[in-house]
Amino acid sequence: MHLSTTARVLGILLMLFSSAMLVPLITALLSDDHTITGFLSALCITFFSGLILWAPARHTRHELQIRDGFLITSLFWTVLGLFGSLPFMMTEGLNLSPAEAVFESISGLTTTGATVMVGLDDLPHSILIYRQLLQWLGGIGIVVVAVAVLPMLGIGGMQLYRAEIPGPSKDSKLTPRIKETAKALFSVYVALTAVCAVSYYIAGMSAFDAIGHAFSTIAIGGFSTHDASMGYFDNNAILILGSLFMFVSAINFGLHFVAWQRRTLSPYKSDSESKFFGSIMLLGITITCSFLILSGTIEPGDALVHGLFQAVSITTTTGFASENFSLWPTFLPVMLILFSFMGGCGGSTAGGIKAMRVMLIYKQGIRELKQLVHPHAVIPLKVGKHRVEATVVSAVWSFFAVYMFAFITIMLLLMATGLDFLTAFSAVAASINNLGPGLGDVAANYTSISETAKALLCFAMLLGRLEVFTLLVLFTPMFWRL
Amino acid sequence: MHLSTTARVLGILLMLFSSAMLVPLITALLSDDHTITGFLSALCITFFSGLILWAPARHTRHELQIRDGFLITSLFWTVLGLFGSLPFMMTEGLNLSPAEAVFESISGLTTTGATVMVGLDDLPHSILIYRQLLQWLGGIGIVVVAVAVLPMLGIGGMQLYRAEIPGPSKDSKLTPRIKETAKALFSVYVALTAVCAVSYYIAGMSAFDAIGHAFSTIAIGGFSTHDASMGYFDNNAILILGSLFMFVSAINFGLHFVAWQRRTLSPYKSDSESKFFGSIMLLGITITCSFLILSGTIEPGDALVHGLFQAVSITTTTGFASENFSLWPTFLPVMLILFSFMGGCGGSTAGGIKAMRVMLIYKQGIRELKQLVHPHAVIPLKVGKHRVEATVVSAVWSFFAVYMFAFITIMLLLMATGLDFLTAFSAVAASINNLGPGLGDVAANYTSISETAKALLCFAMLLGRLEVFTLLVLFTPMFWRL
Ligand SMILES: [K+]
Ligand SMILES: [K+]
Repeated sequence: MHLSTTARVLGILLMLFSSAMLVPLITALLSDDHTITGFLSALCITFFSGLILWAPARHTRHELQIRDGFLITSLFWTVLGLFGSLPFMMTEGLNLSPAEAVFESISGLTTTGATVMVGLDDLPHSILIYRQLLQWLGGIGIVVVAVAVLPMLGIGGMQLYRAEIPGPSKDSKLTPRIKETAKALFSVYVALTAVCAVSYYIAGMSAFDAIGHAFSTIAIGGFSTHDASMGYFDNNAILILGSLFMFVSAINFGLHFVAWQRRTLSPYKSDSESKFFGSIMLLGITITCSFLILSGTIEPGDALVHGLFQAVSITTTTGFASENFSLWPTFLPVMLILFSFMGGCGGSTAGGIKAMRVMLIYKQGIRELKQLVHPHAVIPLKVGKHRVEATVVSAVWSFFAVYMFAFITIMLLLMATGLDFLTAFSAVAASINNLGPGLGDVAANYTSISETAKALLCFAMLLGRLEVFTLLVLFTPMFWRL
Repeated sequence: MHLSTTARVLGILLMLFSSAMLVPLITALLSDDHTITGFLSALCITFFSGLILWAPARHTRHELQIRDGFLITSLFWTVLGLFGSLPFMMTEGLNLSPAEAVFESISGLTTTGATVMVGLDDLPHSILIYRQLLQWLGGIGIVVVAVAVLPMLGIGGMQLYRAEIPGPSKDSKLTPRIKETAKALFSVYVALTAVCAVSYYIAGMSAFDAIGHAFSTIAIGGFSTHDASMGYFDNNAILILGSLFMFVSAINFGLHFVAWQRRTLSPYKSDSESKFFGSIMLLGITITCSFLILSGTIEPGDALVHGLFQAVSITTTTGFASENFSLWPTFLPVMLILFSFMGGCGGSTAGGIKAMRVMLIYKQGIRELKQLVHPHAVIPLKVGKHRVEATVVSAVWSFFAVYMFAFITIMLLLMATGLDFLTAFSAVAASINNLGPGLGDVAANYTSISETAKALLCFAMLLGRLEVFTLLVLFTPMFWRL
């Protein structure tokens, strides 16, 4: 491992990140509000910390190795998460404890969207756009890491995505590939955000809200500039557009890039994961809308729009709310939260276990049933036309088991701090799946739970975002040996 | 498939089962109560139904094949479950609907121990001993099926247990092996029950209660002759003895047989599964007792005894209660119910996923972490000194995933009927793990839930008892092809 290289990369990331704080700072200067000092101090601290990390190591030119990949990826969200909390701590009047500031920042950057802030509608625009921006930056970080870095690290079967990555694909060194890929993905990401913002604006949002919500839609983040979330606008066009863009953002960005480059929709049609994800999504929407209509919870017309929006928002792990869905019959929110364990496709901004892994697990179950009836047959496991290697399958299974184990452990710890079952279950699911809103005591926001509970949930958000293994591997002694 | 052979075997089983009804019938005759007609009619119906099934097929001598194994095993619990409900339906004054009678019978035979009867203390002895006997018969059925039949069927990695089975082990035909094995296991089962009954009697139970509770202890059933379950006796010696016998019954009966035959404890010492199970059990007991003491829920002295008893009772999926543990801080009951997903060892009377499978999943998770740090190393998966074959591992994974999927689906269906989250979660866990008591509305008994909910839970009990795949495979078209 080359710690100097890690320091250099982290230094650059921090300096880049500090430049992102210019956006809220300029917003603050334009409206001349009381948040100027906070953002200016945060920007300076972040920039100079980055400089101090970068300067001594600026001439090192070691190639990044696999282990560096684990370390840098984990540090990306933890270190940026800590520095990202500075504006929340340093702005007067927000009244956030340090733990709450870190919670809000990590929740933003991991695109979870769980919040400890209330009274959003009355906050200065600088704070609001900063929260949205945190999600947007976290989102592009995820896409790059998921498409370019994780497949190299071989986490939980992410090797499956290798074929679809642009860039020099047979190179085992990380640096050139990451640069190539990052550029390509960034352009797709910016383009999608722009189209989404314009659509929201045309549908009736203000320019500020349109940009802010485009940030958190494409990032599958779920932060809003209003306490009532998307319900604030009371506008069906916005809800339908939102559903569309959330769905698109939950598809592999590698596919978007290829489709855009070749000007054709065929990459989606031939992609098994997208088709599987689409089918599950359709199932979720159908059950939600039918149950809302049959149980008479809301009017049939509203049921279709809100059913569609909530099903897409929760399943893709976005977490926007169009109305207070925690008041629906508990069956629906619990079912949708269980759907969020799948989340979206790999290489997207969505959280959860990912459609590809769920599909492999499903196919393996069917295969096993066949094997029982025909014990001597050799039945291969295929995705599309490709046979899936045994090592990939076993990596996927381990991922699934470790994910579940982490989920259950953190849930029990939360219950030991005194939370009730529904609150603990939904809070951990909402955090590890990077979904955001929970049920019970955390249906609206996370202010009421203890500092310990908040710290545990921060850890869960990081675990989820880092595909569990990237973070866990750092806790093994063997990682640090040699 | 040879349906005539299946009919013959099922006929014999029904006739044998009817003879078991002699026990409550004689009890009824001795106390000359109103249950005589009920038991007599049930006995006759069951016997003649068996005779009608057996007679036309009595000369068929086909060897049982793999598929027959699936069918007969599934029919064992479903058909006996239906006939077993007859005494409950035909006894006046019990006031059970047909669905409730079937629920009680299936719950007994699958050794789940969930009950829809209240006021047990006032019921005739014949009914009480019949319920205990149902569990005891179900228990020996499970041991024989788990040790002799399932390993042949290759369900969820049950092949792992092949080595430990007595009898002609290289014979691929089912009949001779099942007969040999069944005899050996039956003697161990009877011996253990006798020792348990005598111990309970010496510790202070009446002879009737001692025998009744020995039946449901060794079967890991959990039915009691008192509404207050084991708490009725208010006797620490009984609780400690109960814990011991539940623990022993959750160990592979194949091991008990070998240990008994060779008059040595060494088989246990060299068995990885037993050691793993013991460690997890110890962990569960430690957390339970510590939490009870630290939280000041009950007095430290009581905390040790009740903590031990409840941890063993729930983890092994027995389901006896020493006090109303649903009133403990929710963390504890939920944690113990999660432990019950492991249950006991394979080849025991316990329910759940089984310690061997959980151990394999755990080892595979550790292996995967090592693999991430050393991507090019070849790291085998071992249990004891034996390398585990890839087909076994993949069967175990599929088992785990299908089990979880079945659990979640049935839980959502229950919630759709209107049950709250904690009730639905605990009821399905208590059913599919063959545990018995739940939390929330089903903490004491299952009378208050709807008939639909009861039917769903019956299905869950059968799924769990039949290791999911044995039952599911019957629902695939390919099983019936040819
Ligand atoms: K989110
Ligand atoms: K039980």
